[in-house]
Amino acid sequence: MTDVGPYSNYRLSVRLELANRPGMFARVATTLAEEGANLGAVDIVSAGPDKMVRDVTFDVQNEEHGERVLIRLGQVPDVRVLSASDRIFLLHLGGKIRVESKLPLTTRNTLSMVYTPGVGRVSQAIAKDRSKVYAFTTKSNSVAVVTDGSAVLGLGNLGPEAALPVMEGKAMLFREFAGIDAWPICLSTQNPDEIVRTVQSIAPSFGGINLEDISAPRCFEIERRLKQTLDIPVMHDDQHGTAVVILAALKNALKVIGKRFEEVRVVVNGLGAAGMACCQILLAAGVSHLLGCGRHGIVLSGDPDRLRTCRHDLATCIQADRPTGTLQDALKGADVFIGLSVGNVLRSEDLDLMAHDRIVFAMANPDPEIAPDLAMSRCRVFATGRSDYPNQINNVLAFPGMFRGALDVQASDINEAMKLAAAEAIATIIPESTLSEDYIIPSVFDKQVVQRVSKAVADAARATGVARRRSRIAEDAPKG
Amino acid sequence: MTDVGPYSNYRLSVRLELANRPGMFARVATTLAEEGANLGAVDIVSAGPDKMVRDVTFDVQNEEHGERVLIRLGQVPDVRVLSASDRIFLLHLGGKIRVESKLPLTTRNTLSMVYTPGVGRVSQAIAKDRSKVYAFTTKSNSVAVVTDGSAVLGLGNLGPEAALPVMEGKAMLFREFAGIDAWPICLSTQNPDEIVRTVQSIAPSFGGINLEDISAPRCFEIERRLKQTLDIPVMHDDQHGTAVVILAALKNALKVIGKRFEEVRVVVNGLGAAGMACCQILLAAGVSHLLGCGRHGIVLSGDPDRLRTCRHDLATCIQADRPTGTLQDALKGADVFIGLSVGNVLRSEDLDLMAHDRIVFAMANPDPEIAPDLAMSRCRVFATGRSDYPNQINNVLAFPGMFRGALDVQASDINEAMKLAAAEAIATIIPESTLSEDYIIPSVFDKQVVQRVSKAVADAARATGVARRRSRIAEDAPKG
Repeated sequence: MTDVGPYSNYRLSVRLELANRPGMFARVATTLAEEGANLGAVDIVSAGPDKMVRDVTFDVQNEEHGERVLIRLGQVPDVRVLSASDRIFLLHLGGKIRVESKLPLTTRNTLSMVYTPGVGRVSQAIAKDRSKVYAFTTKSNSVAVVTDGSAVLGLGNLGPEAALPVMEGKAMLFREFAGIDAWPICLSTQNPDEIVRTVQSIAPSFGGINLEDISAPRCFEIERRLKQTLDIPVMHDDQHGTAVVILAALKNALKVIGKRFEEVRVVVNGLGAAGMACCQILLAAGVSHLLGCGRHGIVLSGDPDRLRTCRHDLATCIQADRPTGTLQDALKGADVFIGLSVGNVLRSEDLDLMAHDRIVFAMANPDPEIAPDLAMSRCRVFATGRSDYPNQINNVLAFPGMFRGALDVQASDINEAMKLAAAEAIATIIPESTLSEDYIIPSVFDKQVVQRVSKAVADAARATGVARRRSRIAEDAPKG
Repeated sequence: MTDVGPYSNYRLSVRLELANRPGMFARVATTLAEEGANLGAVDIVSAGPDKMVRDVTFDVQNEEHGERVLIRLGQVPDVRVLSASDRIFLLHLGGKIRVESKLPLTTRNTLSMVYTPGVGRVSQAIAKDRSKVYAFTTKSNSVAVVTDGSAVLGLGNLGPEAALPVMEGKAMLFREFAGIDAWPICLSTQNPDEIVRTVQSIAPSFGGINLEDISAPRCFEIERRLKQTLDIPVMHDDQHGTAVVILAALKNALKVIGKRFEEVRVVVNGLGAAGMACCQILLAAGVSHLLGCGRHGIVLSGDPDRLRTCRHDLATCIQADRPTGTLQDALKGADVFIGLSVGNVLRSEDLDLMAHDRIVFAMANPDPEIAPDLAMSRCRVFATGRSDYPNQINNVLAFPGMFRGALDVQASDINEAMKLAAAEAIATIIPESTLSEDYIIPSVFDKQVVQRVSKAVADAARATGVARRRSRIAEDAPKG
């Protein structure tokens, strides 16, 4: 029986009634082990002279496996399954975020200052000088997480309601990693004009817009039009969060193998939202040998001169209808493969087409472009989006710090310089002496990440003239 | 020198350095008293052998008064004003609400359940059965507080940014009084079509829509169209919150003076958002003698039959161009005056035109239609929107419980029956034996209010078939 990995998506909590005598729980544990279920937390709910009630949490491979385990548990003598529930769904009950008041409203006095009539003076001050909205409201620290539900995770067009738990998860990450107040906005329209118009309409009360899970190619136009018309930062995280972290990882991978950006040949496979942004940031970072592959083969290629002209409008360089070769053709002699496509499109012998000391980032979710076990022995540096192998490329490393930095200086945009600065900040968190094939990217739980990224992004915003203040506003003034 | 009322809008905090010897603080207190400033909190910041630093909070009448007081304080020997700040603005620094994660994200394990990959299963479950969005997301408990900033408090068209502190205050009230997650959405458009379209677009992630501070007559059309097209409750609080509380207060006022709804003659002055909704709910509650006055006099009048036909479309009954009399004409013999207009439109002799045992609700803000000191001796029951007189008619009594009740049963609408139920619930919180001329409406801090209102509203939703579940979802399931 295959064992369950460390971060299963299928976690069950079961309430069991057991006879209260020695050895009973061991029977349960043995049954779980026999079935290949990973035992987690165990709590005692109640204990009487004859019976004991326990909550037992364990991981299974999938729903069918979970059902089998429950049946087996029910067959253990003197054990009764009182209830069983799915841990992930339990965690989601009632939603994962909430709105809190920063001060308690227990007296009429406070009420009269934070609401009518006192608040009227603050409104009048902002009406007189609109920039004061940053000082006296949550706009200075808030981000709308906007989706149309057209490309929810890797699961496709599930619609706005199904996207909501993901957007709430994103809002949690904004809060927990960067202290940002993010609220999910799931749209009932998938029409780009209407999406642009809606986001423009709701922009006054937010300090930034994080676009999320909007399918390509609509996402490009939507982001471009919003960036042009709004005076707050707009970023489609599936594009740029991913691209920034890939660039950071590639910087360190190249340091490990001792090659320079200018000399390596890079293949990007998959030219959706993330793939296009990845090509763009690689060109901005100095890559000059770049091949991009779509479903039918090489659709983006050219000499350094040609690519230079593409930097401002990559889409025009793509020849979707006239592939000039296969993915395998592209791989011949390549130093770097970056997969942002679908699982298992590479065979292990494909890797042998690449140059020596090859770097492979296989980012498809949940199954990478090539199984890690096949790839790891065949390349110098291997990375995926998964947490159960070394070198997890996770955009949680980028977006919290990027928006933190942008909000701190009231940036009007998140521009290319800010993205490059974010990538450099992530990369340099690992001292060069510590870098290795298995350690090219910091942990998402490294507290330095948000600090360093936000500072670098704020500095870049100031340097490029999009910052509207020098440093972070005093958020925690005495209240009440 | 006039004293400052108990709930001043102008509250200053001053940091003073005083010589550290007896009698110094008394000098400060005396100076404040001489200037008519009300001394509030006093804190010691630091104390040395020679000097002492204190923070002193006091209320003044207005900004000029505050400046005068600061100058006088600076002239007291051995007192130095180190800094002075406006308490209300201090409270607003950085905004008044925040988004919290319901569980900490400190382990990779939790991360993998609340975000990708685990959350994907929840998304798929909702994609399969859209109604599950209520069980597993914040939609079940969230309200968008939407404004276009066209009628901010009584201050006029200040725009969306200036409206934001008010909407944040509203969100605080939703949280603190009813445990609801409300988020402000301030729109950059004042075009009704665009407002309707924007709110329709963002509706999927919210459980209800509270429209706020949108000017009449645009607010009527916007609310009507949103109610028709959305499957979540929509309520313009300036209209219906106010109307519900007025109805509750009138129910109790009539009990006090011993008259019935069917027999009283009611004059409503001011036919904006609140005035129109007030007329509507009074008709629904059984009032049959109703006169409505606009700026130029009586524009809504008629016998009971005519009014009955108006109940479904009040606007068509208004003859704005052909007033049939003055406000004074309307007052002749009236039992009830409800002012939702502007300050000081009534003289005290106007009240003498009314019937015996008259009831006057003068709701204009900040100055009522007639000064309380003039009116109180001239009518049986007098009420205002102000907190410094008895009988404060405050819509904080209505909207938190109304939305709580609607969300608890996943109501698709807030309909007339639910509004009438809310008014009855508010009214009956005060036992008849306790009712008096000065006590017709409960305190906003009475914990019973939200409980009783939400239950009554939920019951009415079920009775009228707009409830989609029987009772509140278990929000506080074990997390983490």
